[in-house]
Amino acid sequence: MAREDTPSTPFRHTLRVYWEDTDAGGVVFYANYLKFFERARTEWLRALGFSQQRLRTDTGAIFVVADTSVRFCRPARLDDLIEVSVEPRDIGRASMALHQQAWLGGGAPGGPALLAEGHIRIGCVDAGTFAPRRIPNAILDALT
Amino acid sequence: MAREDTPSTPFRHTLRVYWEDTDAGGVVFYANYLKFFERARTEWLRALGFSQQRLRTDTGAIFVVADTSVRFCRPARLDDLIEVSVEPRDIGRASMALHQQAWLGGGAPGGPALLAEGHIRIGCVDAGTFAPRRIPNAILDALT
Amino acid sequence: MAREDTPSTPFRHTLRVYWEDTDAGGVVFYANYLKFFERARTEWLRALGFSQQRLRTDTGAIFVVADTSVRFCRPARLDDLIEVSVEPRDIGRASMALHQQAWLGGGAPGGPALLAEGHIRIGCVDAGTFAPRRIPNAILDALT
Amino acid sequence: MAREDTPSTPFRHTLRVYWEDTDAGGVVFYANYLKFFERARTEWLRALGFSQQRLRTDTGAIFVVADTSVRFCRPARLDDLIEVSVEPRDIGRASMALHQQAWLGGGAPGGPALLAEGHIRIGCVDAGTFAPRRIPNAILDALT
Repeated sequence: MAREDTPSTPFRHTLRVYWEDTDAGGVVFYANYLKFFERARTEWLRALGFSQQRLRTDTGAIFVVADTSVRFCRPARLDDLIEVSVEPRDIGRASMALHQQAWLGGGAPGGPALLAEGHIRIGCVDAGTFAPRRIPNAILDALT
Repeated sequence: MAREDTPSTPFRHTLRVYWEDTDAGGVVFYANYLKFFERARTEWLRALGFSQQRLRTDTGAIFVVADTSVRFCRPARLDDLIEVSVEPRDIGRASMALHQQAWLGGGAPGGPALLAEGHIRIGCVDAGTFAPRRIPNAILDALT
Repeated sequence: MAREDTPSTPFRHTLRVYWEDTDAGGVVFYANYLKFFERARTEWLRALGFSQQRLRTDTGAIFVVADTSVRFCRPARLDDLIEVSVEPRDIGRASMALHQQAWLGGGAPGGPALLAEGHIRIGCVDAGTFAPRRIPNAILDALT
Repeated sequence: MAREDTPSTPFRHTLRVYWEDTDAGGVVFYANYLKFFERARTEWLRALGFSQQRLRTDTGAIFVVADTSVRFCRPARLDDLIEVSVEPRDIGRASMALHQQAWLGGGAPGGPALLAEGHIRIGCVDAGTFAPRRIPNAILDALT
């Protein structure tokens, strides 16, 4: 079944590796995959119609990362194109769990290669107090 | 005269502001404009046909930033779209000077706004010794 | 029992939160705890007598992060003093697992508070090929 | 004449280069000197008795960087100790100019070496509106 045909297909966001992303090992600094995963989550929410800046202004809610479990498989390098997926796994009332992967673009020698993958749990909190709160209904409706 | 009609028009690269780019002031952390400028320079070189990773592998040369002079005019925020320009001003044999600007996208209330602008001088050096060297001819030819 | 008296006491490294560490939520950007954990690991190795730069020059080995599992408990803010611990849990021939915690300094109102904690597995690889290799004996001897 | 004896001696802050600070060139990523300069300014203000977090809570003021002019002289590497100076040059009512340098620690082969230096102008603004405002008197009094 082709990627485009099914709503269960993970969302994908493509990004480029720049100097700022690398370290003296000559490869992408591992902690930056957390940034890449977050860029993809932000674009996933935007594709669903939600801006986090507007969410905060309108409802006082922000999403925060509650825990992350990430496995780093293979190094990426300057100029590489990376495709990052977002797949919601468990949507609760105040938090959700997502599975995310970073793949080296298909143009690479040897074909696509998994760079990193992880499970990320994000929670909805009040922007002022950081107390947990319910995910706004519009977002819950769009996700479930 | 339309932007597309003239070779003297600066190259432009568009990027999005993510959480990673902001600081506790609620705005883009100023030092990150240097990263934005660099992403645009990298895409400008790519548009001219040059990959810095391949440049290094093929010729042993890398570009390094020699000096920067940047003025920060106005804050940008999460989710903003930023357009970054690259305008070569002075191409020498071993270094070049560029003028770069970061603009808040035209969709912003009040129209486009200048966020930051600067002059960046980059030099060509040997990747192993950091000794200055001549910019590869293929790049010089493409730029002049 | 004083910290100095017992080999089982974790190593501790103290650092300050600067603007660069924060995000628009007004708190430390969560991915930066991975940087804080790494600074502490670097200082832990240094306290054992090992510089990673010298390790690379002398043996061609570098340590890379293989996987991380981190729980983010409580936000930290600009100017906070953070104490990061390093506790080796499982030292293998080519990799080791460490437990690390980040605590808000004891001077905080309400006393010390756990900010984040995680398990980090680092592997020893060849700096050129990223192929796994044995941890240098001098380090293994110091750790076991 | 010892450093402590003279008010004209610049303030100095020492920091270590970690993996996070480097790029694929094997050296400190140039934009990170702006972070190093800022850490030193923060510690300089703290040495004068001022916390920026408390400044914001108490007065609603924050300092922002208005312009920077930085020259990058020589690369630094993983594990290097860097000494960053802060020398106020021009203290106005709403902004101040500082001269800052980053030196490779004296223990380096060949003695101390200048890594980067620059002029940084910071302005005092309202944390909510980013409108310029007078630097709080207590700080002005401590500086002049």
